[in-house]
Amino acid sequence: MKRTYGPLCVLLSILVVREARADEPLPSWNDGAAKQAIVDFVKLVTTPDSPGFVPEPERIATFDNDGTLWAEQPLYFQLIFALDRVKALAPKHPEWKEKEPFKSVLAGDMKAVLEGGERALMELLMATHAGMTPEEFNKIVKDWLATAKHPRFDKPFTQCVYQPMLELLAYLRANGFKTYIVSGGGVEFMRAFADKVYGVPPEQVIGSSIKTKWEIRDGKPLILRLPEIEFIDDKTGKPIAIERIIGRRPIASFGNSDGDLEMLQWTSAGAASRLCLLVHHTDGKREWAYDRDSKIGRLDKALDAAKASAWTVVSMKDDWNRIFAFEGE
Amino acid sequence: MKRTYGPLCVLLSILVVREARADEPLPSWNDGAAKQAIVDFVKLVTTPDSPGFVPEPERIATFDNDGTLWAEQPLYFQLIFALDRVKALAPKHPEWKEKEPFKSVLAGDMKAVLEGGERALMELLMATHAGMTPEEFNKIVKDWLATAKHPRFDKPFTQCVYQPMLELLAYLRANGFKTYIVSGGGVEFMRAFADKVYGVPPEQVIGSSIKTKWEIRDGKPLILRLPEIEFIDDKTGKPIAIERIIGRRPIASFGNSDGDLEMLQWTSAGAASRLCLLVHHTDGKREWAYDRDSKIGRLDKALDAAKASAWTVVSMKDDWNRIFAFEGE
Repeated sequence: MKRTYGPLCVLLSILVVREARADEPLPSWNDGAAKQAIVDFVKLVTTPDSPGFVPEPERIATFDNDGTLWAEQPLYFQLIFALDRVKALAPKHPEWKEKEPFKSVLAGDMKAVLEGGERALMELLMATHAGMTPEEFNKIVKDWLATAKHPRFDKPFTQCVYQPMLELLAYLRANGFKTYIVSGGGVEFMRAFADKVYGVPPEQVIGSSIKTKWEIRDGKPLILRLPEIEFIDDKTGKPIAIERIIGRRPIASFGNSDGDLEMLQWTSAGAASRLCLLVHHTDGKREWAYDRDSKIGRLDKALDAAKASAWTVVSMKDDWNRIFAFEGE
Repeated sequence: MKRTYGPLCVLLSILVVREARADEPLPSWNDGAAKQAIVDFVKLVTTPDSPGFVPEPERIATFDNDGTLWAEQPLYFQLIFALDRVKALAPKHPEWKEKEPFKSVLAGDMKAVLEGGERALMELLMATHAGMTPEEFNKIVKDWLATAKHPRFDKPFTQCVYQPMLELLAYLRANGFKTYIVSGGGVEFMRAFADKVYGVPPEQVIGSSIKTKWEIRDGKPLILRLPEIEFIDDKTGKPIAIERIIGRRPIASFGNSDGDLEMLQWTSAGAASRLCLLVHHTDGKREWAYDRDSKIGRLDKALDAAKASAWTVVSMKDDWNRIFAFEGE
């Protein structure tokens, strides 16, 4: 009898486990206050005829990208892209050999590059992000993402995304939320992968932008990216862009740094049913541990605000049983 | 027997008529080249495994508003709103009695106001559109729309919308399109009615904007509208805003004036499956007849481009059997 029913039992137990997993939308989240806050919030806004109910069109959730959806160390990935582009474009720019900050980039002297401050970084960004159409830029970013590897993990950058946040995005969408990215990163840079990696379509990506101009060339219209900042989607820029582009106040916002403070304040001051969440980088082993003193992704004022306003703070070390999908490979 | 089956026959005939109507998504459109072009295009992009098929997420349709979705004569409705606001705010601004262009507005001398040119109009717009939060502005517009009447039709402005275009919006959405408004009108002005009147939610309304600033007042964050132009969503501004905000090229665009030319050119130069359509105001009896020489809604270069590029041109007189829902009341 045992041998006869054995395969059936295996099949049944597989089915039971699969069902349990389907019921568990956040498998990479440990049970705890953070996960509970998310599940409670979703239940609150989706329960019809309850006081906390929010109609589907108003379920807007906004996510920061760098440090919230994917890693941002040892440098913002878009900056690594810019450095790689300088190297790729160097043969066409012999003058860069003698000109800072390009000279230091080509010499691999990142310390000198960073000493140039914001002006140097802006110069690198403009030299590598402008002078082409958005379609051409999109292809350049995609080609880079297809081959470049993260210096620590030796994985494509699009794999250095947080598995628990992917689950959260999917969970919110399954509950009628429209998920937006609202990031200081370049809007066209993020559009090159946001749909495929996060399931966030181009029209739901909000970011910093450079100016563009319209041109008719050989009878064909084109839009050209110009080396001039149009909008910085950081700090107060985030709620301002949300109001201008979405025109609704989010009921859920997710960030990880002081650059996200105003977006969370804006969400927090809205309707009674709301969720404000900060990802706190506390896992120096599996990822990085940094907050108040970090140059990249500094989390200081926003951490104080989270405590004062009882926002949800996620400890990556304690709340996430898996950070990256490639862990344990 | 007749009397017995009579009610059943009536019921059956009602059902048959209802079914016929459900099959006919554009009842206010006369049969003809324009209607055929729309129906053919929708069939082309929605037929799976056909060469013209377009996946649902890429079915982006962009509509101009003034003169395309609602009337724009004798003045843009937003300008009529601004004039009404000057009158409403006048008691708080005694200095306006002696100051142009306000003096002429209060004296009802529109000719003198228009002689002040763009500078005068901009001054009126800034005095009436800035100095409050977007929520407050939204309420002001809604209150105005609830009571103000169109000078010719004596109907609320939100009823001066083109019935055939409402049917077209619904028809496209029923076929998986995402419908956007891309208008020179103010984005927050249009958001006050676009959802209710057109079924276009706030996040799918793109328009001109004024600058805003972030402020914490009494511990509460707010966004304040400033009397300074940020972006004019007209002419080349339209494709530029489409690229920046939507990040996809529309496959269908609808306009009525030279301000829409570049949006239609941008759509026209895209994928093989596309529809570019101009509403031509040819019905002086039911609406207005104007094109090349009109100060408002001038249609000149775009009409030439439509002929050269074989875009669809709708004659309101010949192609629409009903312009406004209130016709024949």
